[in-house]
Amino acid sequence: MPQLVEVAEKYPTVNVHQGVSELLRGQPRVSIVKLAGVACAAGAEFVVAADMTLAAAETVKLAQNEALLGIMPGGDGTQDLREWMGRARALGAVVGADLVDAATVAQHGWINRALRAAELDSFVDTIAHNIASIGAHVVAGVKKALPSADLTEGLRVENDARWALVQHERAQKNMGATAELDVQTRVSERDIEGLLRRVASQL
Amino acid sequence: MPQLVEVAEKYPTVNVHQGVSELLRGQPRVSIVKLAGVACAAGAEFVVAADMTLAAAETVKLAQNEALLGIMPGGDGTQDLREWMGRARALGAVVGADLVDAATVAQHGWINRALRAAELDSFVDTIAHNIASIGAHVVAGVKKALPSADLTEGLRVENDARWALVQHERAQKNMGATAELDVQTRVSERDIEGLLRRVASQL
Amino acid sequence: MPQLVEVAEKYPTVNVHQGVSELLRGQPRVSIVKLAGVACAAGAEFVVAADMTLAAAETVKLAQNEALLGIMPGGDGTQDLREWMGRARALGAVVGADLVDAATVAQHGWINRALRAAELDSFVDTIAHNIASIGAHVVAGVKKALPSADLTEGLRVENDARWALVQHERAQKNMGATAELDVQTRVSERDIEGLLRRVASQL
Repeated sequence: MPQLVEVAEKYPTVNVHQGVSELLRGQPRVSIVKLAGVACAAGAEFVVAADMTLAAAETVKLAQNEALLGIMPGGDGTQDLREWMGRARALGAVVGADLVDAATVAQHGWINRALRAAELDSFVDTIAHNIASIGAHVVAGVKKALPSADLTEGLRVENDARWALVQHERAQKNMGATAELDVQTRVSERDIEGLLRRVASQL
Repeated sequence: MPQLVEVAEKYPTVNVHQGVSELLRGQPRVSIVKLAGVACAAGAEFVVAADMTLAAAETVKLAQNEALLGIMPGGDGTQDLREWMGRARALGAVVGADLVDAATVAQHGWINRALRAAELDSFVDTIAHNIASIGAHVVAGVKKALPSADLTEGLRVENDARWALVQHERAQKNMGATAELDVQTRVSERDIEGLLRRVASQL
Repeated sequence: MPQLVEVAEKYPTVNVHQGVSELLRGQPRVSIVKLAGVACAAGAEFVVAADMTLAAAETVKLAQNEALLGIMPGGDGTQDLREWMGRARALGAVVGADLVDAATVAQHGWINRALRAAELDSFVDTIAHNIASIGAHVVAGVKKALPSADLTEGLRVENDARWALVQHERAQKNMGATAELDVQTRVSERDIEGLLRRVASQL
């Protein structure tokens, strides 16, 4: 993908996951995540790499829960969270590693807005229609004046810190024990944080 | 105005509208906007250039709606919005180009606080009196430790991006068609976003 | 304390109070303030130097009220407030110099979250337990990717601005008159802002 090559040239030390996030962040068009359910780990990193997230207030939860495997976010997550929420709340999200409800993530700036589930579709349709109406050249002009931050140093540090954790004996044990379980089922996914904490506590 | 000359020397590429915003941003005293109604476009840029905005929760709405004319904010608006709300919400405001209610702008940091309309006057009187009481030298000291961000690069990009849009055929048509209408009436102003969208959709 | 010497070497112009805040900010572990009551002045600066603050919604209030003595925060307070809340709200807090309720400080980002008082202990216990469970090496890795901002210039300006105010005749009178009163009693502390305003108005 030539666009990923461009990202790789701009950020020579990024990993592939960070590259995908940077690709999304660097689009001349506006990316909107419409979220009705739960997103965690890499899924939650995709959310924060988008330009905007609009979420159903009653049902959405977000978790950056990689720490439960003895690792940490490694696809822009720490840097995007810091940009949206500031260091204190980003840190709380990553080391707390728990699901956070929609009202709280809206207050923290993790998402743009939480809306009543019944209104979410029409709200997103309207904003998407409005953005399309103003023309791609206007959108591109606005995005020039509001460029995504230069994360060169942050991505390097995130990648290095994550890689050190992935190689750590504790993470290896943790991921090994988890891989032996049947975690990618609907039931497990519903309380993945609880499951991972139980696995970790038994190592 | 000698102060505008100073701004022009500090930021050699700013336009006059940006210069006025920078003049307001750079005051040694505290500027407070007390807002009870609707502010949009250049009016909304004046709001965000002030140090603080206190707003009536029931009646205030803000819109950075220039995109509806095929242009974009060009008087510090994109940069001030980014400083107060972060990139995601600033972008949403500018490309969404719609009125946003007081509760949401307070949550996003677009203003300092939304207060019940009945309390707004006394709240602002109290804070203005308190600020006056501590003395201009204390205010100036605090503002030294909390300087406005250096927007040199951001203002240059905002000005260039806006100027390119103003010269674009689409904006010329858009502004031309709007100028032929009687838009600066009370009725038109009450739904200026709707009116501008209808004009744009018929070009 | 060897750690303070390290801070002093990193920030050669900091004062001791700023040094203590930097020491707290620079910890490889996560510092959590659990707050059930009122914190003001240096106490409030301690709060914002910590990584996270969780507060009782019904009872917590915060004030950065040094301006009432004719001085200003001088222990990282202005810089930490700016990092958590942005310039507009930090400025409002410091020159307003008034108590702010928990719901507002949570909305502004002055703290991480306000929780019902009845839930505060168990919430903090859970997050502390969860952080301990992921291991100190994971916490340290995350903190590397989310370093505290470099405040070298901000701390220098804060220290200089505060020192100029401390030496000002007005502050000397103000602090002198206050020192003669019996302010460190429970009753006085309950309305310290009112008391200091009355003292200042009579100078």
